[in-house]
Amino acid sequence: MKIKIGILGYGNLGRGVECAVRQNPDMELAVVFTRRNPEDVAILTKSAQVCHVSEAEQWKDKIDVMILCGGSATDLPEQTPRYAAMFNVVDSFDTHARIPEHFANVDEAAKKAGKVGIISVGWDPGMFSLNRMYANAILPEGKDYTFWGKGVSQGHSDAIRRVEGVRDGRQYTIPVETALEAVRNGEDPELTTREKHTRECFVVLEEGADADAVEAQIKNMPNYFSDYDTTVHFISEEELKRDHSKIPHGGFVLRSGRTGWEGENHHLIEYRLKLDSNPEFTSSVLIAYARAAYKMAQEGQTGCKTVFDIAPAYLSPKSGEELRAALL
Amino acid sequence: MKIKIGILGYGNLGRGVECAVRQNPDMELAVVFTRRNPEDVAILTKSAQVCHVSEAEQWKDKIDVMILCGGSATDLPEQTPRYAAMFNVVDSFDTHARIPEHFANVDEAAKKAGKVGIISVGWDPGMFSLNRMYANAILPEGKDYTFWGKGVSQGHSDAIRRVEGVRDGRQYTIPVETALEAVRNGEDPELTTREKHTRECFVVLEEGADADAVEAQIKNMPNYFSDYDTTVHFISEEELKRDHSKIPHGGFVLRSGRTGWEGENHHLIEYRLKLDSNPEFTSSVLIAYARAAYKMAQEGQTGCKTVFDIAPAYLSPKSGEELRAALL
Repeated sequence: MKIKIGILGYGNLGRGVECAVRQNPDMELAVVFTRRNPEDVAILTKSAQVCHVSEAEQWKDKIDVMILCGGSATDLPEQTPRYAAMFNVVDSFDTHARIPEHFANVDEAAKKAGKVGIISVGWDPGMFSLNRMYANAILPEGKDYTFWGKGVSQGHSDAIRRVEGVRDGRQYTIPVETALEAVRNGEDPELTTREKHTRECFVVLEEGADADAVEAQIKNMPNYFSDYDTTVHFISEEELKRDHSKIPHGGFVLRSGRTGWEGENHHLIEYRLKLDSNPEFTSSVLIAYARAAYKMAQEGQTGCKTVFDIAPAYLSPKSGEELRAALL
Repeated sequence: MKIKIGILGYGNLGRGVECAVRQNPDMELAVVFTRRNPEDVAILTKSAQVCHVSEAEQWKDKIDVMILCGGSATDLPEQTPRYAAMFNVVDSFDTHARIPEHFANVDEAAKKAGKVGIISVGWDPGMFSLNRMYANAILPEGKDYTFWGKGVSQGHSDAIRRVEGVRDGRQYTIPVETALEAVRNGEDPELTTREKHTRECFVVLEEGADADAVEAQIKNMPNYFSDYDTTVHFISEEELKRDHSKIPHGGFVLRSGRTGWEGENHHLIEYRLKLDSNPEFTSSVLIAYARAAYKMAQEGQTGCKTVFDIAPAYLSPKSGEELRAALL
């Protein structure tokens, strides 16, 4: 009996989940729900159906876990509690400030329905959060650092594209190597925004646009660029397509701490991700936690969970015996 | 009410646990048990007692968790099941091949007594195992790599000291940087033993010993050195004391994997530890899992657990609400 997966929303993340299911022989994709006309949505998995989202409730007893692949701004705050009333669900809600409220809503719906809802799964929040938590528990006297990149920031790329005279653009967030090295060396630096990351932009201009004006407008944009050292490159549309169509990302979570009776010994814990495809890696984490949701529901657990609440073994298809023999 | 900790065995690890307890305000050290004459054992914590190990049973209701700081070869296989019949226990059992048997013994004793026993806690096994497991669950199609060092290998240092003509010695295991870089670049190399690590020895000779003969004997020693590129430095006893008295260690766990419908995207997950003091870091992990043992026992859980079976939140003194708000 394979774990039957449903996907709600077929964008980059939904497609990534579809690919990830294929890599896990204990799972199968049963259905993809879309807000579009199902006939216009071509998926890769021959054996799975495409249905309109309005039909989801009819699948209540036909899938084991629904993976919610909508956005955090407006989709998930509404979708996750709603579908947790019908399915075990997993989402990648990433609006840090609203997590407590989202947790409460999902918890109430999932408990009432006897389902498991796992929220804020991915890499940040997700694997980065886990590593921050483990490292803080192990080294209570220390300092946390998170660096993002090198990777594409969707928000900053959108900001560039809103500048007048810009046809298209892509922004990379890049960690400052000397700052990373100072942390690794145990210097426990206090780092400003500018000292942690630089921003690199690749911009395609509209015909006749003023390059200097565009560059100045980008570099001085408050919140997005003015607090950073920003580089702007002007390239052709072909170059943008050829060299910048992937969605890489990643980053570093570090904890620098001290132990000993007088804090005489220094320790560094570093977790690093280097990802060719941000949505596909997020999807792979979602699928591992979908397995956890399934197993926890089988045990009769209910309510909202985060990565902090879930024992690692739930993520693996291996038994306890296999894990102890092979990976411990 | 603080969590009351007992320590059994006061060597490097026991002293490390004592220091770690001091960094955690929700815990206190109640007692250290020793096989030596208690009057000959001076501990750092004024408020704690030192007792002979034969008195341990009398502390059954006076401590919450006993941390077993003996060795894996002969102490722990016998001690952990015995004390799991009286206390919630945590150990750092690290003989990988014997873990299934040790697990079964501790599980039986702990279940019978209604206690929790957590085994094989530290960094390898321990945090490295956790990272291997998470990374395997997320990227099922991939390759695992573990590199150790730079750090002191106790076993190899002992091997050097058994060579005739050697007064004292210290051995460092060093990962090969080019091999690490090949893994990080997604080349998925097949690495021989020699290609992964080098070994560096610092040796103090007995008076009149033949340096060339000692060097040849070390470099050709089977199992320990003959499969590696080994460097031998001869130094004075003063230099050894001055430059090589710390016990640093660490290493890297990497998983290189692929996602996408045709495996078209590469991802790297890397976990790194850089530790000034191997025993003090291990102790800090033991203490975080002692908190988990205490909380799980409070909930009525019993039996043997490993790092795979324990939800991360159990390690932290923070509540679920606090963790979600601060670290997710």
